[in-house]
Amino acid sequence: MPVGGTPNIGIDIGGTKILGVVRGPASGETVQAQVNALTPLESHELLAALVDVVDQLLAATPLGSRISSIGVGVPGFVGRDGIATQSPNAPAVVGLDLSGFLAERFGVPVVVDNDANCAAVATARIDAPDMDHVVVVTLGTGIGGGIVVDGRILRGHHGYAGEFGHMIVDVGGAECPCGQFGCWEVLASGSGLGRLARRAAVEGRAESVLAAAGGDVEAIDGPLVSRCLAVGDAGAAAIFDELASWVAVGLVNIINILDPAIIVLGGGLVREGDALLGRVRRELAGYPTVAVGRQTQIRASGMGNAAGAIGAAMLAETPSEVRRDRH
Amino acid sequence: MPVGGTPNIGIDIGGTKILGVVRGPASGETVQAQVNALTPLESHELLAALVDVVDQLLAATPLGSRISSIGVGVPGFVGRDGIATQSPNAPAVVGLDLSGFLAERFGVPVVVDNDANCAAVATARIDAPDMDHVVVVTLGTGIGGGIVVDGRILRGHHGYAGEFGHMIVDVGGAECPCGQFGCWEVLASGSGLGRLARRAAVEGRAESVLAAAGGDVEAIDGPLVSRCLAVGDAGAAAIFDELASWVAVGLVNIINILDPAIIVLGGGLVREGDALLGRVRRELAGYPTVAVGRQTQIRASGMGNAAGAIGAAMLAETPSEVRRDRH
Repeated sequence: MPVGGTPNIGIDIGGTKILGVVRGPASGETVQAQVNALTPLESHELLAALVDVVDQLLAATPLGSRISSIGVGVPGFVGRDGIATQSPNAPAVVGLDLSGFLAERFGVPVVVDNDANCAAVATARIDAPDMDHVVVVTLGTGIGGGIVVDGRILRGHHGYAGEFGHMIVDVGGAECPCGQFGCWEVLASGSGLGRLARRAAVEGRAESVLAAAGGDVEAIDGPLVSRCLAVGDAGAAAIFDELASWVAVGLVNIINILDPAIIVLGGGLVREGDALLGRVRRELAGYPTVAVGRQTQIRASGMGNAAGAIGAAMLAETPSEVRRDRH
Repeated sequence: MPVGGTPNIGIDIGGTKILGVVRGPASGETVQAQVNALTPLESHELLAALVDVVDQLLAATPLGSRISSIGVGVPGFVGRDGIATQSPNAPAVVGLDLSGFLAERFGVPVVVDNDANCAAVATARIDAPDMDHVVVVTLGTGIGGGIVVDGRILRGHHGYAGEFGHMIVDVGGAECPCGQFGCWEVLASGSGLGRLARRAAVEGRAESVLAAAGGDVEAIDGPLVSRCLAVGDAGAAAIFDELASWVAVGLVNIINILDPAIIVLGGGLVREGDALLGRVRRELAGYPTVAVGRQTQIRASGMGNAAGAIGAAMLAETPSEVRRDRH
């Protein structure tokens, strides 16, 4: 919670957009202002854009310019010094000392962390308060996530823990962009939904979905299947059943390895209502290792796309937590 | 380390045998005495056997009867109160207040915990000292293990974390005794080795192994394959290659989820020398998510079968750690 009732700022640098929020001051979870900008391709433009976002947020803050800290989430690998060393989606951040730059510019402490960690900590604290072992799984185009134990992110030794998407659940299965075969992400993500649907169409199990794609198998993608499901298409429902069975397999593994109190599912596939969540819960109930001795809650995240920015602000207020176990 | 240089006692109650050790006092890791007994089937006999084991250990302790605490590892699920609620392998422990009984009998603090947790904490502290994120995987008849972060066991919400054997790596694969299909334990354990060898024999890929089994496919098991490998059998080597590829798949998943600094492999399959470890390391090097950005060490445990007893003694000296996050 912001120190002494002072609000603070969180910024999420995405591959295409920057989202900044002012958080607090009272409950600590109230977003008081929100600013969007495009993510520039060049580093010096990125710094200028960040200054502009913070200036706009300060101007929009009821208490004027009094903020206690700034947190920044960046996509990619962030070293102990807060400097990104790799960022395929936002190369402009690589090598930048964002915390040094912003701290000098605005005179407050600045913390930089990985965006998935930021989103996980916000999701865990807001969607699963008072839970000791929380796993956040983001089912979007790919699969991301984070592990939060007693309110702290479990980062792993190199800072790469929580890469759930690249656990192998189907040896010899379809190739993943990472180069492995049978990764969970290939099967249980938004792109996995499209892949399942295209296979169903080829095998003659999804005629209405294929018709909705104008008869072009390659035009079938996840959002199209979701739209078909929304209008009650039976073929799309069967594809969602198949997707849910793959989602469940990965959750079984997470439950056996981490035994969380709760798994919070977020991301585009879950935001589309209860279509997936109910199916996943039914699938999970059929697994002996899940049903015996554990009562793992499965919940949809209530956080929107500001989770990363809010989490960055949260982490900026608990700097002792940041990168405590990253090497 | 035992308090004030006083040794303490650790006891590992197995399905067939009880192993007790006196640990300490100086280095904290020296086993000064060791006692074996058979595990009785009845609860009252078990209590008598435990008293006998402790009496023998006290008699064998150089400093006489001065011990600071007793730790007990039991197979099965142990509640926050130290009482086992389930134990398929040692039903005599279920419902017993071992800590209350032994504390009253011997006048020292007693801690009871799950045997896999005990073994994991000893293995982590002795085989991987000063490592922040340690995963212990025991490749025996089945697959067990534990997660140790900053010297503390990650137990999970219900106390069931680290059940690596039941992560699903081969959807639609062979049935596991747990009732699931394609569990890692079915493929990468000692019983998995036997299964791989029987299949190889049926498919004509392991004639010498089949001959060693007297031509009886059903007589092929893991130990037989190991014996064939030890005398340089090429068919057995090919089966070990296959086993190593399955071991690697599970390790890839552990690395992606937990990102440990080191994975310590223990259990019977690893104790048989370097046959498996070298193969597993070579397999792992081929996985992109392992090779990029991480330098995860894979090491064979140097602990023998006393790991559980030594770990129980360790946990008894750090009671604040015990079951801190179990519900």
